[in-house]
Amino acid sequence: MERYEYIHGGNIYGENGRADQKLIDFSTNINPLGMPENVISAAKQAIEHAVIYPDSACRRLTHELAKFESVGEKSVLCAGGASDIIFRAVYAVKPKKILVTAPSFADYERAGRAAGAEIIFYPLNKESGFAITQNIVTAIFEVLPDMVFICNPNNPTGILTDIDTIGEIAKACRSINSVLIVDECFLDFVPDSQKYSARELLNEYHNVMVVKAFTKIFAMPGLRLGYVICDNEMLLDRMRFCGADWPVSNVAQAAGLAALTNGRDYIRRSVKYIRLERERMMDELSRMGFVTYESCANFIFFYCDWNVDLNNMLYNSGILIRDCRNFAGLEPGYYRIAVSTSEKNTQLIKTMRGEKFFWQRQS
Amino acid sequence: MERYEYIHGGNIYGENGRADQKLIDFSTNINPLGMPENVISAAKQAIEHAVIYPDSACRRLTHELAKFESVGEKSVLCAGGASDIIFRAVYAVKPKKILVTAPSFADYERAGRAAGAEIIFYPLNKESGFAITQNIVTAIFEVLPDMVFICNPNNPTGILTDIDTIGEIAKACRSINSVLIVDECFLDFVPDSQKYSARELLNEYHNVMVVKAFTKIFAMPGLRLGYVICDNEMLLDRMRFCGADWPVSNVAQAAGLAALTNGRDYIRRSVKYIRLERERMMDELSRMGFVTYESCANFIFFYCDWNVDLNNMLYNSGILIRDCRNFAGLEPGYYRIAVSTSEKNTQLIKTMRGEKFFWQRQS
Repeated sequence: MERYEYIHGGNIYGENGRADQKLIDFSTNINPLGMPENVISAAKQAIEHAVIYPDSACRRLTHELAKFESVGEKSVLCAGGASDIIFRAVYAVKPKKILVTAPSFADYERAGRAAGAEIIFYPLNKESGFAITQNIVTAIFEVLPDMVFICNPNNPTGILTDIDTIGEIAKACRSINSVLIVDECFLDFVPDSQKYSARELLNEYHNVMVVKAFTKIFAMPGLRLGYVICDNEMLLDRMRFCGADWPVSNVAQAAGLAALTNGRDYIRRSVKYIRLERERMMDELSRMGFVTYESCANFIFFYCDWNVDLNNMLYNSGILIRDCRNFAGLEPGYYRIAVSTSEKNTQLIKTMRGEKFFWQRQS
Repeated sequence: MERYEYIHGGNIYGENGRADQKLIDFSTNINPLGMPENVISAAKQAIEHAVIYPDSACRRLTHELAKFESVGEKSVLCAGGASDIIFRAVYAVKPKKILVTAPSFADYERAGRAAGAEIIFYPLNKESGFAITQNIVTAIFEVLPDMVFICNPNNPTGILTDIDTIGEIAKACRSINSVLIVDECFLDFVPDSQKYSARELLNEYHNVMVVKAFTKIFAMPGLRLGYVICDNEMLLDRMRFCGADWPVSNVAQAAGLAALTNGRDYIRRSVKYIRLERERMMDELSRMGFVTYESCANFIFFYCDWNVDLNNMLYNSGILIRDCRNFAGLEPGYYRIAVSTSEKNTQLIKTMRGEKFFWQRQS
């Protein structure tokens, strides 16, 4: 029997449930530019209307999202975060066997198990830098899964998969009647993201769904808003059927609408800011002797061979990072840190340098 | 293949998704006293913190809810509305056969079907005023369901089931290894509600769950917050496992905490206000010749033998009521109206009298 565990990053809440305001959180990958001002005020205004039921169909938001993503309105379904979308997807498809890369986001596995599916891990190997290559197609034909999850760029590695590979995976999945879910929750952080999005495949591949969320890119994890894009209306309808009514609060709907108003601009500014900070951080981490990976997202994945609990060391300095040892397919020593604000990033590097110095003197 | 349909009340949104501000909504059963002021301000404050992930375990809210409901903390699980709770429950239990009364809230049926269960309707009959009696126990032993849903007071009838009957149902269910879900979303509107709550049975019956929500009683349907009380920790854990992470937004958590601060007082005032208004409305409806039922909740169920589409007539006067013809087990002619503010209730009665006059002249 599976037990539920709180395994994700961002757990800054003590036993009493109060957020520890002094902790600096690098364990969740939220846009360091924060929630846009107009989103905050739209969300606050929406509170005044929370006395009526939200639009269960999210019509206005769906309309604007369709424009934003350059797809038809009927191809968009909103829900209470990407996690809600993932659960609806497995309950709608009812797969017997799911192929999931290891490492990747843990909810694919949990959702699959909840729906009674067998989970087959496709190990990404460290020698090839944890990249997802066309080799996975062979595994698909061997395993014959009903469903495949690809996270692009992958979480926790930040490694991007090119669109040709995604296309090959989509084709292989279609040929065996398998649904491919491409989780692009971090893709908007990638420069020229449209070159990599599986959105372009949807018209041809009705077995493909793209999962996205407002959570990270618009820095609103508290409000719970995700969506899926897919050209298979039957599948989307089935996903509506397989989950709660009124999945998106009126506050999240209003916030989402506001976010889209200047969405592209905000994303452009964020990508620019994060790229510079990421490069600086990567340099610093390499210089400290960590093995870093070529992340394209708003977080950095690295390996630390100090033979210490880096997580714990930093926690004692008031910094929370994501120890990746509970990701399937990863041994201890791998960590993920968010690219935060310049100021916080500097503080992290400074603290890590201090720890390193301390560690070197000890060992 | 089941299609998803938007069948609930409260659909005041046009095709473009904009709420029709001029419509007076009697189709949803929200506390007419509205969202408490301290809830509104707590929710607004929470927006400022929505840039961090909410506490996935809802620790503070769970702690306060446990006190509010006089149960242990481990017996409470929060989620994104009662609907979310109901879906988690069926996915956790994976029943093959579910017994549902007809009429009752439609989500029991949809959730059951989504989880692959067969739905068996137990018809409540109009001759006995749609009451749920101990006769249902015979049906339970005949049907041998894995799961039974009882809504108390029932939606859309408002009829209350006494605790002895609920106890007999719980006992019958336990003897055949069946889970009983008692939906008490409207019970806080009933005077002396504690006399009727299945909460008292939880200690003895680990196969029983009580579903509740902040939605109606604290008038915050926009924010999405429901919970379940159950003494079966394994079952609650399984419900955590079978649904999305971070099910409750930080806004809903803050709103819920604020609502509980003066919760009992607010409920007392609401019950008093609604009882007076309900009695007045029932009198008026009876006087107009409608068949009314002895509702104990914040809504009134009645039958109209005018042989007209009352729903449509009132809609043309800017009033939305709940036509109950899409509830399983009900023929056309049954309607449900919320008990709203005194002013709005008077307006509804006035409009209905006008319609009646008009109808009588026509026929």
